[in-house]
Amino acid sequence: MPAPLITLTTDFGQADGYVGTMKGVILSRAAEARIVDLSHEILPQDIAAGAFVLYRAYRYFPPQTIHVAVVDPGVGTDRRALLLVTDQGRFVGPDNGLFSYVLRETVALAARWRGASVPDSVPAVWNPDFDLDAALASAPQTHLPAAYTLNNSSYWLEGPGATFQGRDLFAPVAAHLANGVAPADLGQSIPLESLARLPTAAPICAPGVIEGRVISIDHFGNLLSNIAAGLLPTLGPLETLQVTLGFYQLRGVHQTYGAGLPGEPLALINSAGLLEIAIRDGHAAHQLGGHVGDTILCRSAGSR
Amino acid sequence: MPAPLITLTTDFGQADGYVGTMKGVILSRAAEARIVDLSHEILPQDIAAGAFVLYRAYRYFPPQTIHVAVVDPGVGTDRRALLLVTDQGRFVGPDNGLFSYVLRETVALAARWRGASVPDSVPAVWNPDFDLDAALASAPQTHLPAAYTLNNSSYWLEGPGATFQGRDLFAPVAAHLANGVAPADLGQSIPLESLARLPTAAPICAPGVIEGRVISIDHFGNLLSNIAAGLLPTLGPLETLQVTLGFYQLRGVHQTYGAGLPGEPLALINSAGLLEIAIRDGHAAHQLGGHVGDTILCRSAGSR
Amino acid sequence: MPAPLITLTTDFGQADGYVGTMKGVILSRAAEARIVDLSHEILPQDIAAGAFVLYRAYRYFPPQTIHVAVVDPGVGTDRRALLLVTDQGRFVGPDNGLFSYVLRETVALAARWRGASVPDSVPAVWNPDFDLDAALASAPQTHLPAAYTLNNSSYWLEGPGATFQGRDLFAPVAAHLANGVAPADLGQSIPLESLARLPTAAPICAPGVIEGRVISIDHFGNLLSNIAAGLLPTLGPLETLQVTLGFYQLRGVHQTYGAGLPGEPLALINSAGLLEIAIRDGHAAHQLGGHVGDTILCRSAGSR
Repeated sequence: MPAPLITLTTDFGQADGYVGTMKGVILSRAAEARIVDLSHEILPQDIAAGAFVLYRAYRYFPPQTIHVAVVDPGVGTDRRALLLVTDQGRFVGPDNGLFSYVLRETVALAARWRGASVPDSVPAVWNPDFDLDAALASAPQTHLPAAYTLNNSSYWLEGPGATFQGRDLFAPVAAHLANGVAPADLGQSIPLESLARLPTAAPICAPGVIEGRVISIDHFGNLLSNIAAGLLPTLGPLETLQVTLGFYQLRGVHQTYGAGLPGEPLALINSAGLLEIAIRDGHAAHQLGGHVGDTILCRSAGSR
Repeated sequence: MPAPLITLTTDFGQADGYVGTMKGVILSRAAEARIVDLSHEILPQDIAAGAFVLYRAYRYFPPQTIHVAVVDPGVGTDRRALLLVTDQGRFVGPDNGLFSYVLRETVALAARWRGASVPDSVPAVWNPDFDLDAALASAPQTHLPAAYTLNNSSYWLEGPGATFQGRDLFAPVAAHLANGVAPADLGQSIPLESLARLPTAAPICAPGVIEGRVISIDHFGNLLSNIAAGLLPTLGPLETLQVTLGFYQLRGVHQTYGAGLPGEPLALINSAGLLEIAIRDGHAAHQLGGHVGDTILCRSAGSR
Repeated sequence: MPAPLITLTTDFGQADGYVGTMKGVILSRAAEARIVDLSHEILPQDIAAGAFVLYRAYRYFPPQTIHVAVVDPGVGTDRRALLLVTDQGRFVGPDNGLFSYVLRETVALAARWRGASVPDSVPAVWNPDFDLDAALASAPQTHLPAAYTLNNSSYWLEGPGATFQGRDLFAPVAAHLANGVAPADLGQSIPLESLARLPTAAPICAPGVIEGRVISIDHFGNLLSNIAAGLLPTLGPLETLQVTLGFYQLRGVHQTYGAGLPGEPLALINSAGLLEIAIRDGHAAHQLGGHVGDTILCRSAGSR
């Protein structure tokens, strides 16, 4: 059996050695653990950005992977420390909403949830119909994730200060998990209904138009929206759709950056299955002046 | 036998989790693979910069290493996906020139190529005499690298979108290679002559003068040229040479940064065996206003 | 027995592949080594910053770990290459002061050194009473670290140029160490008294007031001082202390960022056990205009 896999997602940056210190804590306790960095460039305290990066990536790891995420403005206060155990991964970090996109998706899977008015291909996180509480109520208990508050301090590290739980709590707990310690030894079971949640990330759907927004700007300057590809066919053929960002009107939704002219903005379906606005060989966010939170409209041809 | 080694070179940055996702894909298929990051800070779409970083580094890895490189403006178009198998490493990425410096060097080695007018110590990539087609024609076929177009989609990952072949094609193929899948199973053999190539990176040599250019600016602000150290003795003793960048005239070519005065520009032989302009305890690119592509002249003493 | 652990701390950045090259050199010689990055974002040539990052992190790694650090303005000159062997880790890098905080701490431990006028909880590095030479003289020789000048070039790599000893000297030596080569084979024993040292990092203590300074600004913009938490109770109860940075006067020393109001500066004990000035949900260095080297005063209530 290969060594356990642990991923790290933080807003710590890579300059100060904070991430390396977490790895030292893990490897001191679970010498065979393999550690993968997802991102340490989450904007400081931006819980939603961390939740999105984790949500997009976790599905590409083996299901026994332990995902440690620390974007934690409330460190040292009485916000809970969380372990979320799902069939698609185990998640360790503050209970502040950081895992709420993962929670929505794994609960939807457990509940075998299907949207009423939207195509099944639209994931729960981007689905305006999805109701987490209803899915929690309807799912068979045995398939649901399990949540624990990590309050057994005998698995923690006694470090100086109260400001670095990535080092003192989450890293050692992840190592103990990798070593096979049972979740129930690490803390008490808590109801999924009690977990902190981010507001819904789904767009608003009306006849002939979807109102979404920019949820992330990536390293290439691409503007990622919350509009899932599966919603678009309800508006008409992709090549006929109108996509609007501020003053910019784009015609058609494409499949590759190469479909655009160099320097011209285009809308396409990206690698997360979401509508994205990009500029071939350019930086859409800088060149179009786009920001996280900006409205993106997607309309049927001929509608206005 | 130790686990296979895989390196990654991309222009993805480290903020978005794209690199971590590739690692998840690899480790899901080749759990024992060891992965090393070469760089994820290649300037977006800068194929030549990626080719140089890879060329400079690959020689320091074991010969069975798999080097995955993704700087890929043409992702999703019909540019080929390439596997290049050499005695000094295996290379996986888009067929857009990213491996052309590696190709030149490995073909020169296979052809036991030697320059006519320049010293043997000048590597093929920086050698104005080197002719890739001639070397390909003269080399014994059995020693040449082998190239494959990665068109067997049964080894790919079916991900959403067509824009992330690092995740959906190159990462899974690298994992299968690491697991021992034969190149010919991953795609069809293609002639080396057909691979995309970057223009030559060699300088221009004339009697008494070499005209090179800045090919890279590193993290310290050092201006790296394409003038190989082995060319310099043809101009005269190193301490007598004149090196010109824009308005700046430097006297002598040194061996260490410590040979300069703090704050003063100096020319030296760097760790890639290339002429470099640096400022001790300073940032030459900022302080001298140098850019990639700027001309660097190297002259014999007394010539002009 | 798990594979040896090697950490890397440099000012190389991550763009150029220099760090990846060091990993290639290590893994070519010690295939099973596990490598952890501490930081590659040390400001160029900032030896004190590298020394601090290493000092803060090394204690969280297993004691057999090999810590390679390269912040090396004197590369290629006659400064020595150093191996420092302690009970808490082995350290490889230039002899320029980079390991002097580690040296102080490990010598203090070996000498069972205790301060005369300050509480025992104040670490030697931050302790104005600590005298390295006195501790070296008083410690039982058998418990002290051992130092070696790495001058056996048969363990080096012959690379082009003289400017990259991270690749050509420190990486191969670390690999050989990981493989079990004895320190005495790598070079000659040298006295600890001869090692290069940074100036003391301790603050100045007077009755009722401690004069410290900003020693580091982290990724979050927090201003870290050299005032150890253990010194503060000598001034009075933490909640009554006055902390001064430039025009800013802060009341009380807290335990968590959450103790502050959003946007307001506060003083707290950080995860290194040092006094720190932070802004909750903000960037103290930008918002207060703080820099490394700025004076921080900590006073008893009522003193001035």
